Amino acid sequence: MPLPSSYVSLAARFAAGDTSPSSELKTRLARLDAIEPAIHAFVQIRREAALAAAEASDKRWRDGQQLSPIDGMPIGIKDIIETENMPTGQGSPLWTGFETKRDSASVFALREAGAVILGKTATTEFAASVPLIPAANPHDPKRTAGGSSAGSAAAVGGGIVPAAIGSQVVGSTLRPASFCGCVGYKPTYGALNRGGSFDHLTQSCVGVLAATPDDAWAVAVAIASRVGGDPGYPGLEGPATLPQAAAPRRLAFLETAGWEKASEGAKAAMAEARKRLADLGITVIGRRDDPAIEAFEQVIVEAGPVTFAIGDWEWRWPLGTYAKREGLSEPMRKRLASGLAMTADDYRTALKRREEIRAQYAQLAAGFDGFVLLGATGAAPVGLSWTGDTTINIPASLLGTPAITLPLLVDDGMPLGLQLIGRKDEDAALMAIAHWVWQHYAP
Amino acid sequence: MPLPSSYVSLAARFAAGDTSPSSELKTRLARLDAIEPAIHAFVQIRREAALAAAEASDKRWRDGQQLSPIDGMPIGIKDIIETENMPTGQGSPLWTGFETKRDSASVFALREAGAVILGKTATTEFAASVPLIPAANPHDPKRTAGGSSAGSAAAVGGGIVPAAIGSQVVGSTLRPASFCGCVGYKPTYGALNRGGSFDHLTQSCVGVLAATPDDAWAVAVAIASRVGGDPGYPGLEGPATLPQAAAPRRLAFLETAGWEKASEGAKAAMAEARKRLADLGITVIGRRDDPAIEAFEQVIVEAGPVTFAIGDWEWRWPLGTYAKREGLSEPMRKRLASGLAMTADDYRTALKRREEIRAQYAQLAAGFDGFVLLGATGAAPVGLSWTGDTTINIPASLLGTPAITLPLLVDDGMPLGLQLIGRKDEDAALMAIAHWVWQHYAP
Repeated sequence: MPLPSSYVSLAARFAAGDTSPSSELKTRLARLDAIEPAIHAFVQIRREAALAAAEASDKRWRDGQQLSPIDGMPIGIKDIIETENMPTGQGSPLWTGFETKRDSASVFALREAGAVILGKTATTEFAASVPLIPAANPHDPKRTAGGSSAGSAAAVGGGIVPAAIGSQVVGSTLRPASFCGCVGYKPTYGALNRGGSFDHLTQSCVGVLAATPDDAWAVAVAIASRVGGDPGYPGLEGPATLPQAAAPRRLAFLETAGWEKASEGAKAAMAEARKRLADLGITVIGRRDDPAIEAFEQVIVEAGPVTFAIGDWEWRWPLGTYAKREGLSEPMRKRLASGLAMTADDYRTALKRREEIRAQYAQLAAGFDGFVLLGATGAAPVGLSWTGDTTINIPASLLGTPAITLPLLVDDGMPLGLQLIGRKDEDAALMAIAHWVWQHYAP
Repeated sequence: MPLPSSYVSLAARFAAGDTSPSSELKTRLARLDAIEPAIHAFVQIRREAALAAAEASDKRWRDGQQLSPIDGMPIGIKDIIETENMPTGQGSPLWTGFETKRDSASVFALREAGAVILGKTATTEFAASVPLIPAANPHDPKRTAGGSSAGSAAAVGGGIVPAAIGSQVVGSTLRPASFCGCVGYKPTYGALNRGGSFDHLTQSCVGVLAATPDDAWAVAVAIASRVGGDPGYPGLEGPATLPQAAAPRRLAFLETAGWEKASEGAKAAMAEARKRLADLGITVIGRRDDPAIEAFEQVIVEAGPVTFAIGDWEWRWPLGTYAKREGLSEPMRKRLASGLAMTADDYRTALKRREEIRAQYAQLAAGFDGFVLLGATGAAPVGLSWTGDTTINIPASLLGTPAITLPLLVDDGMPLGLQLIGRKDEDAALMAIAHWVWQHYAP
């Protein structure tokens, strides 16, 4: 399987006039017409506005006045993120047609960078619950695209856009990326400004789904350099294009609580990946080789319970106000009930536990170039009503660290991600390793 | 001047049937009819809904089923905070009539506690700029009510409601409270859930304006106990009613950069206040008595510049998206220009400086029961186009500490606040001191 080429690599061809953003967009729109009826990646599309924006980009590239490496890139926006020319429905009938007439921080920055906003992509209810408006997997429409950034992953994995914006609190960027065969990048917590996204939890962050690491990084930096990170956070730092490849020497392999939920195919793929990484000269160390890893494995199994305890409390609002109206799903009503059963002290206890786990991770992470694990517990499951298991995607969310999944593995004939996790605020270093693995891994 | 009585002190009379929330509300509505035409505290009023809610509260008190100490309390809500039955206009023509059909976390919690939401109160543009819809001072309608929580302070200071919700990033709760002769309580940063408030800056917090410390505290705890603090923060902790009065022994007096902007009347009032506190047996120590205070005075003059540097960057979004439309004020366009002139590194530098100042404060604060300073640099200025000087209100915002202003001083025949600042996350301890001062100060 040849690696896909990136949008940012077209720069020289744009400059030379060999192709143009609007011509690239037309190819993408043909792909949209071909597969969108089967996958339902988008809930809103603004074809004419996108074409007009692409033509403006054509001119900038011709004049050498491009605004950024992603000038002209067609991008899909998860439908919990505000856009001035489209409603933001949050995957819930309570918000259908809701308009704020402003761009979120991320969308504002992307437009400032010249990107072309093609449409809004399907999300599960409130990016947290059931797929009321399900997107299907572009590699097999009988299977889920995952969630909650379902449409963003489906649109990228299906080749409709080189990149799309998602979000992650639990596993909402990494898991659909793994299922749909694209790159999923969840930055350090706070690294990308969440303003104007209905995404209020303490592990929430903007995620990027892209066909290649180059595009994922260029999109993330285009945002951070224009609107920074969340208020009070330093924000993503690094070069405008993907950091130079750096070979990792020592990676820690993590099973996490996800391992026992992993399919046999996924486990076999991971075993092969470890071998492949070893062949490439990388020392991969697991729980049986290092007592510190073993100790951390015993702690990181709490990632799910601690994340859900924190989230349940944090969902008391707005679910409490939504529950007064018709149209809130039964799973979200149950989530509210769990939150209401908690005390403020339960919440504080969970926050403290998260801090302890983060501290233990930081200590362990100092001794490795990164962590490697499965991108999901297996291939996308068949059916559209369940978005798949999140267990192996939660650790990076709980830790608040950067993570990336690369579509390098296969399970059940479907894409499966290889996940790398780095150190907090060291996103560029993680990307340098991902870059190297991306270049060298393909057998 | 006798101290006003609190709403929470009516509990026994409600239980005995001597009075009722709906009867109290009717008295308040008469006050509204009498003064609102002159002060314009409200931008939306829901009289019928409030009466219905008060009658439901009557029944609960009669049945001994009251939901909290503030059950039945009429409350005004600053118009940057979402309410399910009223639009949220943010003091800007860009948002006039904007509806989300949900309650913010604070309003949701207040309704759960039985409070009666009377209406939305006037705010300056985006709680940050000019008073496009100005509120006047209830003590002299030729003067400003302050800002940005102008209508909340005017409504409380004018006796229309016992309490109102505001917010503060710079001086938006403390200053209007000082001007309008009411209590202003700015909690520790993160102590009250800001969800559903258009209030995205890193010093933003929900503030409470009330006629008495009892009511201010009861309202704050009613919120925190139901929806907690901001996601990731421990949230306000303490009893449901005002902590028992505790006499402070040592208070540090702070001038801050506000002192040289203070009116002669305000300085004289502060000198008298220091004497009064000394008479009450409190040791008040100033910069000339203690080199550590002097050192901190030399640092805290940076509160304004650091706050505005941080805020300018954080306003890049959403101002960048608003600037594309008609209706953004010239001052906000200038603010955007200042933000655009900054780099991400400038912002990180300002964040680091804030951390340093906070650390120095924490060290100094360990040696005192609290800090005392002016609640504003003087009486509310005449005119409605300027909301007054914020300088002396910024330190508590920058520090992220709890602060309260008590309407105990007078300047130019107008109310002036006495400000107390405490230690981060020790709001209850600050309130115990404020309680004692409130009880003992009146000459």
